[in-house]
Amino acid sequence: MSLIVQKFGGSSVADAEGIKRVARRIVDTHKAGHKVVVVVSAMGDTTDDLIDLASSITEEPSAREMDILLSAGERISMAVLAMAVTDLGVPARAFTGQQAGLHTDTAYGAASIVGVVPERIARTIQDGEIAIIAGFQGVNQENDVTTLGRGGSDTTAVAFAAALRADVCEIYSDVDGVFTADPRVAPAAQKIPALTYEETLEMAAHGTKILHLRAVEYARRYDVPLHVRSSFSTKEGTWIVNESARSRWEGDNEAPIISGISHDTSQAKITITGVPDKPGAAARIFQVVADSGSSIDMIVQNVPVNAPGMANISFTLPITDVKRTFRVLEEKREELGFDKVFQNDGVGILSLIGTGMRSHPGVTAKFFAALANAGINIDMISTSEIRISAVLDADDVATAVRVVHQAFDLDAEEEAIVYGGTGR
Amino acid sequence: MSLIVQKFGGSSVADAEGIKRVARRIVDTHKAGHKVVVVVSAMGDTTDDLIDLASSITEEPSAREMDILLSAGERISMAVLAMAVTDLGVPARAFTGQQAGLHTDTAYGAASIVGVVPERIARTIQDGEIAIIAGFQGVNQENDVTTLGRGGSDTTAVAFAAALRADVCEIYSDVDGVFTADPRVAPAAQKIPALTYEETLEMAAHGTKILHLRAVEYARRYDVPLHVRSSFSTKEGTWIVNESARSRWEGDNEAPIISGISHDTSQAKITITGVPDKPGAAARIFQVVADSGSSIDMIVQNVPVNAPGMANISFTLPITDVKRTFRVLEEKREELGFDKVFQNDGVGILSLIGTGMRSHPGVTAKFFAALANAGINIDMISTSEIRISAVLDADDVATAVRVVHQAFDLDAEEEAIVYGGTGR
Repeated sequence: MSLIVQKFGGSSVADAEGIKRVARRIVDTHKAGHKVVVVVSAMGDTTDDLIDLASSITEEPSAREMDILLSAGERISMAVLAMAVTDLGVPARAFTGQQAGLHTDTAYGAASIVGVVPERIARTIQDGEIAIIAGFQGVNQENDVTTLGRGGSDTTAVAFAAALRADVCEIYSDVDGVFTADPRVAPAAQKIPALTYEETLEMAAHGTKILHLRAVEYARRYDVPLHVRSSFSTKEGTWIVNESARSRWEGDNEAPIISGISHDTSQAKITITGVPDKPGAAARIFQVVADSGSSIDMIVQNVPVNAPGMANISFTLPITDVKRTFRVLEEKREELGFDKVFQNDGVGILSLIGTGMRSHPGVTAKFFAALANAGINIDMISTSEIRISAVLDADDVATAVRVVHQAFDLDAEEEAIVYGGTGR
Repeated sequence: MSLIVQKFGGSSVADAEGIKRVARRIVDTHKAGHKVVVVVSAMGDTTDDLIDLASSITEEPSAREMDILLSAGERISMAVLAMAVTDLGVPARAFTGQQAGLHTDTAYGAASIVGVVPERIARTIQDGEIAIIAGFQGVNQENDVTTLGRGGSDTTAVAFAAALRADVCEIYSDVDGVFTADPRVAPAAQKIPALTYEETLEMAAHGTKILHLRAVEYARRYDVPLHVRSSFSTKEGTWIVNESARSRWEGDNEAPIISGISHDTSQAKITITGVPDKPGAAARIFQVVADSGSSIDMIVQNVPVNAPGMANISFTLPITDVKRTFRVLEEKREELGFDKVFQNDGVGILSLIGTGMRSHPGVTAKFFAALANAGINIDMISTSEIRISAVLDADDVATAVRVVHQAFDLDAEEEAIVYGGTGR
């Protein structure tokens, strides 16, 4: 008998039919002899509808009340899901974040978990019942509701899996698992059987919509095995585990060099020319960028041969931040002492991720060759121990994904089936 | 400076516009120098929508989960109302029943209040802020959400008014107050300036849609002055107070003989003939009726002159119960030893209510005369100290309301303005 935490996203419980389907899945797991704890997101567009309601009332909703408001969505879904499970003959109880014992700090809208005291949940499953927990929400020291922000329901599931020492935390959505590339871009993409936490973090940080970084980090810290799978089928999905557990999937072979390819076309690039090439100049620029609220990803600095003593700096940032950051830099141009600033919102980032590249020299060379053969120019490049990322012209990204996918032997024999997006 | 509890029903906060209107009313009260505590129902049809959702999932939703589900409606309305008030420049905080300190027993769906510990609410208004409380919900000893059942938000408002020793509990809806008769039936009906708790209880129990009996009983027990008024106007509504406070409205005059006329066409009548006229026979019949789940209102028993030793018993009951109760009685006919049972769902009940009738003999005579002049037959009659009720043919009820209204000099000079129904 295992203890399994199952998390269902909003798209899996979008309507009564979806709730009943999820309930059958829960009951099947229970009947297979497992203890089951469920974490559920708000139904379909409920959260967006509540945000729209608040927007129709005021431009600046108070953060505390916004969290109470949004938490209503999960209360609805958890209650009806518990009803649906009970209707199938297995008693189920629904619990809010507060009742389940998810304690957070007071950062409304983006609260951090400070502790999980799953006493009622443990008692419920001990009694042979199924515990259904509202995702995305907790309670702070003032007894006020908080929400965890983006990826909050995934993080809730992982937090309870850790606190209850669950055997696995299953993350259900409407896709079959994590693919070697986005199947909408690379039809030959195939499902990855297993990934390490580190690979998953790199993929999630570079455009692959799997799980929120935060949930993966939490799972890595507490070594919670994750299983990302579809609520529409019983097929195995993608396991996300530590490196030694991952080796079980490798059998007699080595790990593949590249586990997957991520791409991200939601990035833009800012280039600053004529930066004084002396200590502190770049630091001052990035302080201004940080103060403007932008989070930047890749940075490249070089000193043109024709202008010694002056550096050029390029960096990528979310496309939604580029206008604001560009304006702030323009305003502070004299103070910062650089020459010119340029913006380019037509860039994309392609990333190859795989722990296997550590032991395989020549990955970069193969990557360059594949792109060069397809006539694609690389603008910037950055690497980590298990990742190579390249900034390309946005129009080239789809082709680049396909040619690199093929070059690293990731192509499947059949085309992948694509469903919709993922839930919260 | 007064402490005012204001309760707004679902129809007052049906949409963003309604919420903003209610917020202005709250802020106006605050700016007039009062401390304000608000109790709010779910927006418009939210509760019905949630019930429909549960029905689409299961025929028998578990009671605990149903209460969590329904409580989501008030969480939404309280949060957005707090946002709307804050948006007008007066800080407001929203509180669930649990946060506000409304403790109940565990009777899900119809919980009773066991205590109110309004510590956070008291602190909030002490700080010059407005406290907005979710109506209809509380928390039990297990830390589970309960709902108070019908009239729950009114009762919540009265309970906090009592616990905080408020000067008044204002109950807002979309009607101007309590009328001498239903203005849709008697266009000459006029608003009643003040009623005693007892009169209000009699009117509410006999078909006038004012407040739920339970809220009025709570107010009577703790002597909380109620003010039933419209959220669409600033006119005085109807005050509901104890008898000595009511005398303030009477000025130099005596209280009116009749304060108002209630009517109820949701009742049916069952008549049982040939009941053995001996001790215990009627008791056994009413035990069977009670076991069938029916609550009965008026009872008349008589012994026909042509059949001594055999009694006839008639009683009224909600029209929704009549089929079931009739069937149960039919089944137990031999066991109970009566002759025949008849049902009539075409009856209506007309009630005259007023503390003034205590000191005015001849009320019954005047009542009979008014109906006789209009050619209306009385089927059954029952009285209390401050009420006369008559069972009539349902088709006669509207005419009866008008002629009795006129006979007791209740007609206004102008016709009343009628809005819609009342909120939860």
